[in-house]
Amino acid sequence: MKYSSETVEKAIHELSKLPGIGRKMAQRHVFFLLKQSESQVKQLAESLVDLKLKVIHCSICFNVTESDPCKICAGETRDRTMICVVEEANDVLALEKTGEYKGLYHVLGGALSPLDGIGPDNLHVRELLLRLEEAVQEIIIATNPNTEGEATALYLSKLIKPMNIRISRIARGIPVGADLEYADEVTLARAIEGRREY
Amino acid sequence: MKYSSETVEKAIHELSKLPGIGRKMAQRHVFFLLKQSESQVKQLAESLVDLKLKVIHCSICFNVTESDPCKICAGETRDRTMICVVEEANDVLALEKTGEYKGLYHVLGGALSPLDGIGPDNLHVRELLLRLEEAVQEIIIATNPNTEGEATALYLSKLIKPMNIRISRIARGIPVGADLEYADEVTLARAIEGRREY
Repeated sequence: MKYSSETVEKAIHELSKLPGIGRKMAQRHVFFLLKQSESQVKQLAESLVDLKLKVIHCSICFNVTESDPCKICAGETRDRTMICVVEEANDVLALEKTGEYKGLYHVLGGALSPLDGIGPDNLHVRELLLRLEEAVQEIIIATNPNTEGEATALYLSKLIKPMNIRISRIARGIPVGADLEYADEVTLARAIEGRREY
Repeated sequence: MKYSSETVEKAIHELSKLPGIGRKMAQRHVFFLLKQSESQVKQLAESLVDLKLKVIHCSICFNVTESDPCKICAGETRDRTMICVVEEANDVLALEKTGEYKGLYHVLGGALSPLDGIGPDNLHVRELLLRLEEAVQEIIIATNPNTEGEATALYLSKLIKPMNIRISRIARGIPVGADLEYADEVTLARAIEGRREY
């Protein structure tokens, strides 16, 4: 049963394409937007179109940016001897938020997944290797701690090790604030394995 | 700590204004949209702007529509002796989906809420009373079963009763598929109160 207004129906349909947004949620958004002013809705719409018009990928690290090279690659205060390798651009966002890391990044654009037909040639692996010829002394592999991410990390470590560059993997363990009781065995095993002396 | 791309940051900010969308979710949407084609993102943006450009309120029932009167008010197959009174336009959508009701609607535009300063004059009550002078024989009050909705229903019933029109309230009881065990006492009490003979 379709709603009587096609415009409303179309907006619900378009919004429900977003990840994690079902029809009910999209409907709620639409009726919320109908109550907003025209300029507010236009502002939202423009900010979305701008994403595709203004945002590009940095030619060095493949992070999302508006200027090439990106602010991180062009940043004068960044430590150019370290590169943190991540799967996606939003991982850069998450790491930058911590304020802990001051080095450069390299966005692979995914993880190795032979079942999905994603091999090293589909990721920005070659570009990473080219960057290692510069002043880089350390690589931190921050791919996700799942099967694909671990496989990618292992692949990269084998590739980079002979180049005489320090290579490390981010720690896997119990998340801060979590309960030991509810942690799964694999995480717990990694937490013990990765223990550090006081 | 802000993200390096202002366009990305702006889109996250705009999306997180939507009800039930937090920063993390907005971020996920943005990175999803960055992977879509330009035409797909434009389609979404246009459908949202169209909401404000094309969708108006029906001058009879105040439902959202693109043509005035709306398709329901103008519909030749609708039963013009019945009016179902709802709070918001999305309630019409929910009721239309059932396919059970063939009468007309009247959207109040909210519910009575003295604490928020919403009285009968802020709702489309006067317009409803004017419609009752026509062929209307029955009114179904389908405001939400919460304090404001019940107060509005009671107010309307007192207002309409002297006009010699049948007036009813939608049934409140245990939702279909729910468990008696988990129903709250008020709902359960209403379910018993509203019992029907076989």
